[in-house]
Amino acid sequence: MSNRQFDPNFTPYVVNSMGPKTPERARVILGSLIRHIHDFAREVELTSAEWMMGVEFINSIGAISTPIRNEGHRICDVIGLESLVDEIANKIVTEDGVSPTSNVILGPFWSPNAPFRALGDSIIQNENPDGRVTYMHGVLRDMETGAPIEGAVLDIWQASANGQYDFQDPNQTENNLRGKFRSNAQGEFNWYCYHPTPYSLPTDGPAGVLLNLMDRSPFRPAHIHLMITHPDYATVINQIYPSDDPHLAIDSVFAVKDDLVVDFKPKSGDPKASLDLEYNVSMALKKHHPNPNAAPPASSFERFNKAEKEKQSRSQL
Amino acid sequence: MSNRQFDPNFTPYVVNSMGPKTPERARVILGSLIRHIHDFAREVELTSAEWMMGVEFINSIGAISTPIRNEGHRICDVIGLESLVDEIANKIVTEDGVSPTSNVILGPFWSPNAPFRALGDSIIQNENPDGRVTYMHGVLRDMETGAPIEGAVLDIWQASANGQYDFQDPNQTENNLRGKFRSNAQGEFNWYCYHPTPYSLPTDGPAGVLLNLMDRSPFRPAHIHLMITHPDYATVINQIYPSDDPHLAIDSVFAVKDDLVVDFKPKSGDPKASLDLEYNVSMALKKHHPNPNAAPPASSFERFNKAEKEKQSRSQL
Repeated sequence: MSNRQFDPNFTPYVVNSMGPKTPERARVILGSLIRHIHDFAREVELTSAEWMMGVEFINSIGAISTPIRNEGHRICDVIGLESLVDEIANKIVTEDGVSPTSNVILGPFWSPNAPFRALGDSIIQNENPDGRVTYMHGVLRDMETGAPIEGAVLDIWQASANGQYDFQDPNQTENNLRGKFRSNAQGEFNWYCYHPTPYSLPTDGPAGVLLNLMDRSPFRPAHIHLMITHPDYATVINQIYPSDDPHLAIDSVFAVKDDLVVDFKPKSGDPKASLDLEYNVSMALKKHHPNPNAAPPASSFERFNKAEKEKQSRSQL
Repeated sequence: MSNRQFDPNFTPYVVNSMGPKTPERARVILGSLIRHIHDFAREVELTSAEWMMGVEFINSIGAISTPIRNEGHRICDVIGLESLVDEIANKIVTEDGVSPTSNVILGPFWSPNAPFRALGDSIIQNENPDGRVTYMHGVLRDMETGAPIEGAVLDIWQASANGQYDFQDPNQTENNLRGKFRSNAQGEFNWYCYHPTPYSLPTDGPAGVLLNLMDRSPFRPAHIHLMITHPDYATVINQIYPSDDPHLAIDSVFAVKDDLVVDFKPKSGDPKASLDLEYNVSMALKKHHPNPNAAPPASSFERFNKAEKEKQSRSQL
């Protein structure tokens, strides 16, 4: 963009300042990060005033974060970084071009404590008058052979019809709208849940400032979270979205993928549900995963810390 | 670095999410920043665990920052960003290849309140037994004509022999080791100050974590700060360094430039000083500055906020 020439030795000088005790992976990561930040500053000819605005913005992220509010995580979501890291970590394409059902970001609301429930049960513990009950069902299959996958654990979680998860909402009991199910010998699964409800990211912090500056909506499309695990198959963590959701094209955290958009259909003859959702999943054997032993995403610490904090406050009573 | 292929449409999709009300300059800056952050993540194949370490690091910057401690500013210094922004903002080279005396970063310790002093006066208000008094003198000249520059204001500030500035140290009075001087008709200036003392950046926060990870010293070479202003000439903000300082090659904030390294010489026959420092400065007419009306660096707010806080605490007595 610029014709001005800056000292070509400066960035290598900064990168090469790392001493011999820097771990090799840290050297690679920090070297690349510093080069990109410097290239960015030169490319836009960042002014002192703009730089200082950026400094204050960075400071504001940590200033509002708490053990149960991770604004740094949220800022990464708003710039698409969590979604990109997920693609890098989990994208599977075989040499024949075969891919399983897409992964997307875990988000901050997964809980390790969801209870196992029987196939056909409901995850709705606390009814919400605006909730539209849905019978959700489908089959898990091997992406190459089409064989049904038995004994996979499907962990589902979703916000209630007010857009809030159990541990954001004092009117919901723990594990409302959460549950783990095991696929049967035919690879089948089924349960009752709600049609999901769109909700906004919190906009009272730096993420709100950034979304406003970018003239973007803070809304996420409505979604149901799924985490599907099996000893032989690569874990699928994703979210599914109603095809008629108005926020599909502008998800504030960039986690929509085409194969995750689903159709809710009217259901008749079932006194328990007014909607039907068929959703089938194909999974890849672990050998196809770029890093099958990667640690699971750690972004659930908001939930852990909340639980920890509640435990502490209970022990003080 | 990687042979893996990631979705080529993802980054443009994130950048193009900005709406029509985004100010044009914000669009340029955020677009470039997002592209570089994404390119970085793909280049190093950033893992989820590494990304989350980065999130926690960002959160820790704001968590330790206060009105009088700007850790975001310090992190930028440690990765060379403030120094680079200074080069972008202030580098002057004429078509004939002529440059004035180098600029470097202002740093967080400049004060707008330094008093005017007469040529030949001392800036030492509080003597430190380890301080080596230096007679500093030189001439300001136009970089093209060599003509002396009369009436420029030279604002000097430095840490005491304990490595602390007046407002870091309760044993120093306000404006100790600070002063403003005006060049005479021959472009000359002179005063008494201390030989400067090297000091460490604070290492009890994220900057310390980063310096340690990069296996780098937190020390800055000893330096004297100068800000030289004149109605017709581009402002020079710089720092000068003793040529025998052991930290010259590894300044923790990357603010050393060759023409700012100076020789302190023994001085005899002056009962007030044991060292002599001749330092001459060449300045560029404002027409040569890439942005002569740029706002001055705003990094002095630590000092402003400290003054404000002291005022408040006094009013509460």
